[in-house]
Amino acid sequence: MESTIGDSAILAPETSLDPTDWQDFQSLCESELSALISHLSGATDRVAWRAVPEDVKRSLAEPLPMEPQGPRQACESIRKNILPWTLGNTHPRFFGWVHGSGTPGGMLAEMYAAAINANLGGREHAPVYVERTVIDWCRQIFSFPDSASGLLLSGTSMANLVALAVARQHHAPIDIREEGVAALPQPMIAYTSAEAHCSVAKAMETLGLGRRNLRRIATNQNLQIDLDSLRQTIKTDRARGLLPFCVIGSAGTVNSAAIDDLAALANLCEQEQLWFHVDGAFGALAMLSEIEQPKLRGIERADSLAFDFHKWMHVPYDAGCLLVRDGEKHRQAFNTQANYLAEGLAASAGAPWYCEFGPELSRGFRALKVWFTIKEHGLRRLGRKIGDNCRQARYLAQQIESSPSLELLAPVQLNIVCFRYKPPGFPTSQLDRLNIELVAAIQSSGVAVPSSTRINERVAVRVNLTNHRTRKEDLLEFLNAALRLGPSVAERVLASDSGAPM
Amino acid sequence: MESTIGDSAILAPETSLDPTDWQDFQSLCESELSALISHLSGATDRVAWRAVPEDVKRSLAEPLPMEPQGPRQACESIRKNILPWTLGNTHPRFFGWVHGSGTPGGMLAEMYAAAINANLGGREHAPVYVERTVIDWCRQIFSFPDSASGLLLSGTSMANLVALAVARQHHAPIDIREEGVAALPQPMIAYTSAEAHCSVAKAMETLGLGRRNLRRIATNQNLQIDLDSLRQTIKTDRARGLLPFCVIGSAGTVNSAAIDDLAALANLCEQEQLWFHVDGAFGALAMLSEIEQPKLRGIERADSLAFDFHKWMHVPYDAGCLLVRDGEKHRQAFNTQANYLAEGLAASAGAPWYCEFGPELSRGFRALKVWFTIKEHGLRRLGRKIGDNCRQARYLAQQIESSPSLELLAPVQLNIVCFRYKPPGFPTSQLDRLNIELVAAIQSSGVAVPSSTRINERVAVRVNLTNHRTRKEDLLEFLNAALRLGPSVAERVLASDSGAPM
Repeated sequence: MESTIGDSAILAPETSLDPTDWQDFQSLCESELSALISHLSGATDRVAWRAVPEDVKRSLAEPLPMEPQGPRQACESIRKNILPWTLGNTHPRFFGWVHGSGTPGGMLAEMYAAAINANLGGREHAPVYVERTVIDWCRQIFSFPDSASGLLLSGTSMANLVALAVARQHHAPIDIREEGVAALPQPMIAYTSAEAHCSVAKAMETLGLGRRNLRRIATNQNLQIDLDSLRQTIKTDRARGLLPFCVIGSAGTVNSAAIDDLAALANLCEQEQLWFHVDGAFGALAMLSEIEQPKLRGIERADSLAFDFHKWMHVPYDAGCLLVRDGEKHRQAFNTQANYLAEGLAASAGAPWYCEFGPELSRGFRALKVWFTIKEHGLRRLGRKIGDNCRQARYLAQQIESSPSLELLAPVQLNIVCFRYKPPGFPTSQLDRLNIELVAAIQSSGVAVPSSTRINERVAVRVNLTNHRTRKEDLLEFLNAALRLGPSVAERVLASDSGAPM
Repeated sequence: MESTIGDSAILAPETSLDPTDWQDFQSLCESELSALISHLSGATDRVAWRAVPEDVKRSLAEPLPMEPQGPRQACESIRKNILPWTLGNTHPRFFGWVHGSGTPGGMLAEMYAAAINANLGGREHAPVYVERTVIDWCRQIFSFPDSASGLLLSGTSMANLVALAVARQHHAPIDIREEGVAALPQPMIAYTSAEAHCSVAKAMETLGLGRRNLRRIATNQNLQIDLDSLRQTIKTDRARGLLPFCVIGSAGTVNSAAIDDLAALANLCEQEQLWFHVDGAFGALAMLSEIEQPKLRGIERADSLAFDFHKWMHVPYDAGCLLVRDGEKHRQAFNTQANYLAEGLAASAGAPWYCEFGPELSRGFRALKVWFTIKEHGLRRLGRKIGDNCRQARYLAQQIESSPSLELLAPVQLNIVCFRYKPPGFPTSQLDRLNIELVAAIQSSGVAVPSSTRINERVAVRVNLTNHRTRKEDLLEFLNAALRLGPSVAERVLASDSGAPM
């Protein structure tokens, strides 16, 4: 029965996309690496942010390249048109939104990941076992049971979406994947605080449950979910014949890093038989700091927990995680049978495949950079840096409180400081505008990048500390810039308000 | 009003996660780079795949690292425990599922992306303009109008989900984001072929529309959606008072690379006023090959189009794209107002933010590797490689047809060849098992990695050619391995069937 075919056929030469000269490629890589390392080691010497000039935007809006430019020219374009105009989150005085700072080791890990080019949807190869290890480590960090499952995702927005899909699946009295939300006998209702992240509402929308079926419960003076109000709302909803199914607690709200009373929420969810999801986008990793850890008490009782590595663990973008206490419930919300996947032998083995735990089938090797960062630095050091940022936030708040023209707008609970510039005698009605303009002025000065938010309807300058390069000197330099720029911004705001020329 | 604070405070020394010795870090990077480049340049010399040994799995299941191991040890672990046990999709004889091969240039781009560490959720920085350029290029490739929007995602599974969310939003007679699917007066129905990718059904589930509301229309002998059957089903659904809203065409099915008659689907959707989405995961990029391009006629008329860069463009995992003809409809399905985002000034500018076009808020800089690959190689060369793979598929099919013990199971329409090993006289009832075992045997031999699927209920050996390193010699080596291994696998299957010891 043995036979061979066609081995004598004349074949046209075929070329791959690999370099024709590997030596030359290697020397290119080395010189680019060297440029990148000076860029990374010089993070402190540059401005934190500057506007992208119009001519750079024009250069980037390049016509569709039909012919090869080669890797050298592509690298040159990066160095000329991209590297100098980044957002600044690798800079020690970047305090905007919630960004991680990245690490040089992360670059090394990504270099490997790109060369390996793994698809983590499933199958039998070492990268899958790296993701398993990362998830196992996360289980241990948060004291989740061995039966818990996990999935790396692009971030907490995606992890919240997947978590709510699992909760929906578990609590629906019908086969919701087959029948759809319209077949539910009653609307399914979820609960979170008014300070919860916008991705929670977005998840309710995406899942077809409707934003109106997310109750946004009022917060107490610490901007934590008000438990009485939550309990009362659930009761009212049940009385109306609705189906409460999930409470989403925040472990660090994005406005002020408020942490809900997670232990109390766990109790309430147990009593009410509701799914307890925790959005711990950045705050969950405060678990790594011995000092901050007690604030998260109860997180280990969540049914599901979402958090990011690219924020406070400084893994390069993007990398988030979802843990689900009951791995089988997780799988039941997303598993699928496709003909072309998995007969379970040889390279097709490796069950369960990760694509059975979420909406993504092709999945990059983001596990490697997480694994690498944890190995390189160890959890203790990573936790110490998290603790440092929290101490820095308290220090900054003290400085603000001691300044007569600054006003703290929210209690500092973790790593976020919200305040406003309020020079004596400045009209209250113009304070919002003043602070929006002040944030822009500080950013434009290149000294630092805070962002803004609203706390109890008032515009705040918002300083988020998830930055391992920040030192206390950076905080002072930032505050001094604010106080230095404040008066002229105030003048401008008043002048434009009174109709005078600017 | 000028004042400064605290600049004389005594501050504790604080250390970052950066290397203490940058020179040492640079020399580490250089030696790792050199190891990686020999790995990449030696792709052909290795086995295509081999099982991950148990002791490697044990090594990877390492206890949670509390103390720093340093970057050197982390790299050593990669070289020892990961690099030798990858899936093989960088190998010239990897033909499984639909994987891209990656490029060395992609590694360079990812190195830069990790160092820049951008979050592409929004804001004003050069990386956002890189993504805009990539999307603009895609618009041009597919002749979409200037008003079209785009979004880079992890892949087509996500892009299909987002596209159906946009279609749902546009066709729902209510405010579906606010009210949810339960408030719809009638079920919304989508249509696709029985050969469509499983992510389409998953999207219907995730969006709460229900899998039952996806009609899987039968296919013709070319495994394309049957247009009469589609038209009839829509008519019946309308008569039953249901709300048809979307047709999902396939530009390259995953089983056999069948391409639906997209022009006919575009006509039908225009007449029926339905959203026309095209799942072009790998097939859409056949647009870059002059020879294959005509098969995609009609794709330029889609309301939305999903496709991947990490497959046939060999961009490192993960990178996919969604284009939406009407950018404003796209935004309306996902936009959000969050206090802590966007007052639109300075670093907060850069509107519209990408997070308003999908479920992800944190978004990595995957645009860079796409941009880099297109610049490095140019579209013409990338298209030529796509054309090469299609020619190779036709060549392989010829070889199969000329072999008495091989049977082609589906017409070769693009780059996928499905066949089975059918030695004369072998019992038909055991052919499925034979071919499943044969695929495993070929994979385990290390010669090549095909995968398996079912075509018209019969198990097929499936060869997918999205590999720029494959030469015709590789196809012959694979076929010879199949024919060499076939007889012993057949004997084993027969023996185990008759209860004899193996």
